[in-house]
Amino acid sequence: MARIARLTEQGFIDWVARFARPRDPGPQALRAILGIGDDAAVLASASRLHTLLTTDFLTDGIHFRAAWTPGFLLGRKALAVNLSDIAAMGGVPRSFVLSAGFPRRTEPAYARQVARGVASQARRFGVSLVGGDTCASRALFLNVALLGLIEPGREVRRSGARSGDGLYVTGRLGAPAAGLFLLKAGARFARASGARAEAIRAHLDPEPRVLAGRLLGLTGLASAMIDLSDGLARDLSRLCAASGAGAVVEQEAIPVAPSAATVLGGRAAARAALVGGEDYELLFAARADHHEQVRRLSRRMRLPMSRIGQIVPKRRGVRILTRSGRYLPVEALRGGFRHFPVDA
Amino acid sequence: MARIARLTEQGFIDWVARFARPRDPGPQALRAILGIGDDAAVLASASRLHTLLTTDFLTDGIHFRAAWTPGFLLGRKALAVNLSDIAAMGGVPRSFVLSAGFPRRTEPAYARQVARGVASQARRFGVSLVGGDTCASRALFLNVALLGLIEPGREVRRSGARSGDGLYVTGRLGAPAAGLFLLKAGARFARASGARAEAIRAHLDPEPRVLAGRLLGLTGLASAMIDLSDGLARDLSRLCAASGAGAVVEQEAIPVAPSAATVLGGRAAARAALVGGEDYELLFAARADHHEQVRRLSRRMRLPMSRIGQIVPKRRGVRILTRSGRYLPVEALRGGFRHFPVDA
Repeated sequence: MARIARLTEQGFIDWVARFARPRDPGPQALRAILGIGDDAAVLASASRLHTLLTTDFLTDGIHFRAAWTPGFLLGRKALAVNLSDIAAMGGVPRSFVLSAGFPRRTEPAYARQVARGVASQARRFGVSLVGGDTCASRALFLNVALLGLIEPGREVRRSGARSGDGLYVTGRLGAPAAGLFLLKAGARFARASGARAEAIRAHLDPEPRVLAGRLLGLTGLASAMIDLSDGLARDLSRLCAASGAGAVVEQEAIPVAPSAATVLGGRAAARAALVGGEDYELLFAARADHHEQVRRLSRRMRLPMSRIGQIVPKRRGVRILTRSGRYLPVEALRGGFRHFPVDA
Repeated sequence: MARIARLTEQGFIDWVARFARPRDPGPQALRAILGIGDDAAVLASASRLHTLLTTDFLTDGIHFRAAWTPGFLLGRKALAVNLSDIAAMGGVPRSFVLSAGFPRRTEPAYARQVARGVASQARRFGVSLVGGDTCASRALFLNVALLGLIEPGREVRRSGARSGDGLYVTGRLGAPAAGLFLLKAGARFARASGARAEAIRAHLDPEPRVLAGRLLGLTGLASAMIDLSDGLARDLSRLCAASGAGAVVEQEAIPVAPSAATVLGGRAAARAALVGGEDYELLFAARADHHEQVRRLSRRMRLPMSRIGQIVPKRRGVRILTRSGRYLPVEALRGGFRHFPVDA
């Protein structure tokens, strides 16, 4: 059978580029003047705008398992986790480079599906592949470095939360953790249905909140923002640490995804929403007198934005008010989402 | 013994950032307004300049072997191969993001040396680390995505060579291939001396020709340029393909590194200079009437720039005029530098 070793070095990147075929060249800034195939891409000057840059990788056995991850969804996710970072800054994603390492035993059909997945996500969000690097690797990995644009001073940092701000999350949490639980137990995307399929999909194909992040940034509603990659408990701690603030989150107010509740049961789903990770929803702070505006934006976008607590002075720490009425320091929930190393 | 599993996710990137401590913030464009620690870095607008973007990774067992690669030099090389791409465009390298995957068995001391190496190279070339991602991985890999700046229209593409242009290379070729030969045969950097140490160093710690690339671009001397990563034969083919041109290279005129000749003997060294790869020297074309200017630049920079042949019409193909006076189609030297997969 054909193996990935037969791909030329540039083959995989060319696949993605071909599958993407942008119809709309988009705004001038950071548009590729010279794309793939030279030593570096040349991007138009982003005059009056600042450039955002982020990178994130997925590697087999740590972030995913190729055995239970359709190539198409793996490709989508590799770009999604980076789009989510640009979303959490309030920026517009524009151009990316992609590095792919494939073991020699990889089927070209699988690599081709990965390429299709990357391209599909790129088309959805109007971002252009402008370069890349492909080579054999002992373990499959995909690394994306994504450029975005932001109006000067409009970037939503993690550090802007102040005591008294409300704390919000977009969407509903816990489904990706439920999906991972199912996959580990042997369930597969292709065979699942109903809530189980929904949960697995949430894990394999997360939706980056690019538009929500953009609107929360441009309107100035979000004073601080972060995307939930490692679990609410852990990412909330990061936002609070950067802001020099504490927080109280009411567990009762955390929106739990119905699919998580169905798959895991209420108690475990509530825990998954708190520490499960990989939700790629946005956690943000907003001034108390902006509450009505956040609600209005949420309604207009048909995207839940739930107030789950508030920012408090740093000395009061970061705590969860549990359903049983106890205040639990967030450090007690340590770890957050644990990747599942094969080596360990 | 302590293992890399004990490093926090952000630990490695923080090491690099700490070791780098830039003294000079450099020009405004693409300077980090917000660096590591948020969802994405924010870089100042590059007004009137275009942005360059490139990515390249190194992974254990394919591009290097951890067993014979000191961590410090591995870190330097991960950045060097990207700097070389910006050099080959004639650009100024500015900011980068770094992804690092370490197997759990990695000694923290090794990772620390890698961080020091990245930081040392960053300081030398005045580039800033603005973000990164570190996680466990089955195989050690380092991926860099590097941003640079270029004056609009000044980028040196691969496609600009025209029939009649002279063909030049910077520096001398073949030493990295000789170094790799020694390493495979059991030699080690720490124990080597003289020509052997020089050859191993050339392989482990290549020098990106950033200043030469910049001057060849700004002066307009180079009509086309590429960096030699996969061997002169292969990269020349790429330059010719992009330019829609052919070329004749005189093997006699290719500058062979003395260390390669000492280690490999004259005949094998000449072959290494042609197909050995990983030289990271610049191959460029220049109009025939610019020959004197190239020579003058070479003298001033104290960097050899050797005329090795010329661009000819495409129909005449890409050929080597061998020492024995035969014309050899470059495809006959197929393969160029072969990485040494562990899996194969």
